[in-house]
Amino acid sequence: MFQPARGTRDFLPEEMLRRNWVLDRIREVFEAYGYEPLGTPAFESWEMLKIKSGEDAINQIYYFRDKSDRELGLRFEWTASLCRVVASHRELPRPFKRYAIGPVWRYERPSEKRFREFWQADVDVVGVADPIADTEVLAVAVDCLKRIGFEGFIIRLNDRRILEAFVELVGLPKERSLDVFRAVDKINKIGVDGVMEELRNAGASAEASTRLLELTALKGRPEATIEETRELLKGLPVGLSGCDALASIAGYAAAFGIEPYLMVDLSLARGLDYYTGPVFEVYAEGFKEYGSISGGGRYDELIELFGGEPTPATGISLGIERIVPLLERKGAFEGLDLGPRVYVASASDAVRAKAIEVAQMLRRSGIAADLDLMSRSLTRQLDYANRRAIKKVVIVGEREFREGCVAVRDMETAEQRKVKLEELTRSL
Amino acid sequence: MFQPARGTRDFLPEEMLRRNWVLDRIREVFEAYGYEPLGTPAFESWEMLKIKSGEDAINQIYYFRDKSDRELGLRFEWTASLCRVVASHRELPRPFKRYAIGPVWRYERPSEKRFREFWQADVDVVGVADPIADTEVLAVAVDCLKRIGFEGFIIRLNDRRILEAFVELVGLPKERSLDVFRAVDKINKIGVDGVMEELRNAGASAEASTRLLELTALKGRPEATIEETRELLKGLPVGLSGCDALASIAGYAAAFGIEPYLMVDLSLARGLDYYTGPVFEVYAEGFKEYGSISGGGRYDELIELFGGEPTPATGISLGIERIVPLLERKGAFEGLDLGPRVYVASASDAVRAKAIEVAQMLRRSGIAADLDLMSRSLTRQLDYANRRAIKKVVIVGEREFREGCVAVRDMETAEQRKVKLEELTRSL
Repeated sequence: MFQPARGTRDFLPEEMLRRNWVLDRIREVFEAYGYEPLGTPAFESWEMLKIKSGEDAINQIYYFRDKSDRELGLRFEWTASLCRVVASHRELPRPFKRYAIGPVWRYERPSEKRFREFWQADVDVVGVADPIADTEVLAVAVDCLKRIGFEGFIIRLNDRRILEAFVELVGLPKERSLDVFRAVDKINKIGVDGVMEELRNAGASAEASTRLLELTALKGRPEATIEETRELLKGLPVGLSGCDALASIAGYAAAFGIEPYLMVDLSLARGLDYYTGPVFEVYAEGFKEYGSISGGGRYDELIELFGGEPTPATGISLGIERIVPLLERKGAFEGLDLGPRVYVASASDAVRAKAIEVAQMLRRSGIAADLDLMSRSLTRQLDYANRRAIKKVVIVGEREFREGCVAVRDMETAEQRKVKLEELTRSL
Repeated sequence: MFQPARGTRDFLPEEMLRRNWVLDRIREVFEAYGYEPLGTPAFESWEMLKIKSGEDAINQIYYFRDKSDRELGLRFEWTASLCRVVASHRELPRPFKRYAIGPVWRYERPSEKRFREFWQADVDVVGVADPIADTEVLAVAVDCLKRIGFEGFIIRLNDRRILEAFVELVGLPKERSLDVFRAVDKINKIGVDGVMEELRNAGASAEASTRLLELTALKGRPEATIEETRELLKGLPVGLSGCDALASIAGYAAAFGIEPYLMVDLSLARGLDYYTGPVFEVYAEGFKEYGSISGGGRYDELIELFGGEPTPATGISLGIERIVPLLERKGAFEGLDLGPRVYVASASDAVRAKAIEVAQMLRRSGIAADLDLMSRSLTRQLDYANRRAIKKVVIVGEREFREGCVAVRDMETAEQRKVKLEELTRSL
């Protein structure tokens, strides 16, 4: 028997209906905010994919050659393709607010929580330097999460320029910034000792490392934390501009309705190297230990790297593979009625054609209706409807049909009533 | 500047909105018929992909090795993955009615009409041997096409067993059937002389080829054509069972509402080798020269090939890359309003936060609203809304807002009216 390839999964209907329900709600919110879909191919030229990827990412790309020996790779996230399109389509409006929902692929060690094919839903704003755009994408993410059943949130917020200033402040070489960010980012995973060791490997003295860990330990509600950070960064203009950005986000956040969730956390770095300003992660309250379910940041230099005009941009990504299991754990899908609403049963073989006509009438008026295709007895048809948790069965019987009627059976109460055919659609 | 990889395309928002509109309508119809989604990965093991593929198909598969030297390939259609799942999940209900919508990949010579990444939307019924299932999937395809704006249809219908009987009848060896089917299938593309040559290459005498072309030239409305075919196939039980299947489809077709479109056409073979019974193709009236926009057939032996129990199955596929351009040509998208409905403009900088609040209120009540993120002047905000064809602009002004009001401007008539904030959502 064949299995899905290692690290990939099948989604059987029940799970797939839930995933689609989540993705549809997310798309509704994306569109409610005026974001528009952009479609890009599943594979891209290897040359392009390499551009923004650190070494880790490159190692994770599914690389292959086509039959003309062209070097290609499966997309491992959505941002590179967006930058390629923006760089080559200068006619796109500013701001360009785009969304993308679909699978991405990474060759990672598979585990219960990590897959080689996983879905991401992204919104990005291209062309806006002001932190209003960062705030909007955060509001989009929070509204998506609310729409699908999450309630409280914690938004961890930092700015890359604050971290860069810290690197300068403790006397570490600028070119090691990325290693330093990566080490600091792991504090919740590997603890202080682990980070100290990674910093030592990155060439930091014990003194510098200790100081850095002290600085990045600062966190709290925006106003006070930003104030304290400004004190630390006196005379370091790059770092202070990071503080300004965070203050600006906190300012807009009230109008966007996400202010209560903000938490400045100077240890947040987000591994990927292309961020240039604010970075952020969203956690669901009560599920913080499961990690962030959404994250992103500003990447003002990336579009230029892909050959475009220098263009500010920011975006956020929702991790579908983390979100769906948490919703299941929350019981958010219970009571959701996602399958067909009606089953049309034939009381006898003589009325099978009539049953088809009734089903067609319902389907064409937008009511999802299933139908016996296996010449089963009425009892077995009812069994089948029951097993599929269909709540209403329309029973087509010979005598009733001649009178222009059918029976509608409520599968929960087992009550049955006679309904005129012309009233059937309305009555369901 | 980077381009999409050869044979692949980007879909900019305008086109993507239309594609999504089409896909959403198709999904609605699939679900109205009680079909359920099944999710399978973009790549599968090479060993599995090879099973049902003729040599042509194998050559077209995007093959690659992952970093553990595992042999993989991108899916080139949906049926193989369906068969794999059915073979290994014996708990699935019977019938199992599943749909799948998404991209598939083939390494074909790219042209204006042929791409290396293209979308297919499939429905299949697993577990039903009776032609009611073939009729239902045809009805699903027709209803999808109606739902998105097509009107008249031609359904070409044949049965593989009739063709097999013809091969026997003209004295050709059974093991060349597939080559013969493939040749006959091309009659509309390469003409009689072309088919004669292909048949000669497949080892057929001129006499046998001529006779075969005569036989397969038969076409017309079901009743008479099936009758005539029965005459030809007297004493050939396999061929006659093909006739029975077609007659049965024609019988059910009336109840399903697709009878007027049926046309038996004995030259229809459909290249792929796995079909075992009825095969069918759907054409849009007035666009026949663009080729079929949907097609499928019965494959009762395939699931066994994938290691499952012997299980009858049939299905149909809608070719999204053919459908969307035809709809554009028909003007089916004109007047469709797919972007955001409302733009929220700030009359001055003093009210920007208020404008955000108004936009958030609309978005949260489900009204798609865009908002200025670039501190543009009111005139430039109206220009932008105009360029994006947004029909209504809500203008937030300082004085009016203090009175609890905003102005709503109709961008087509340039009329402007004052609306109370608490009535805004309802008034749009």
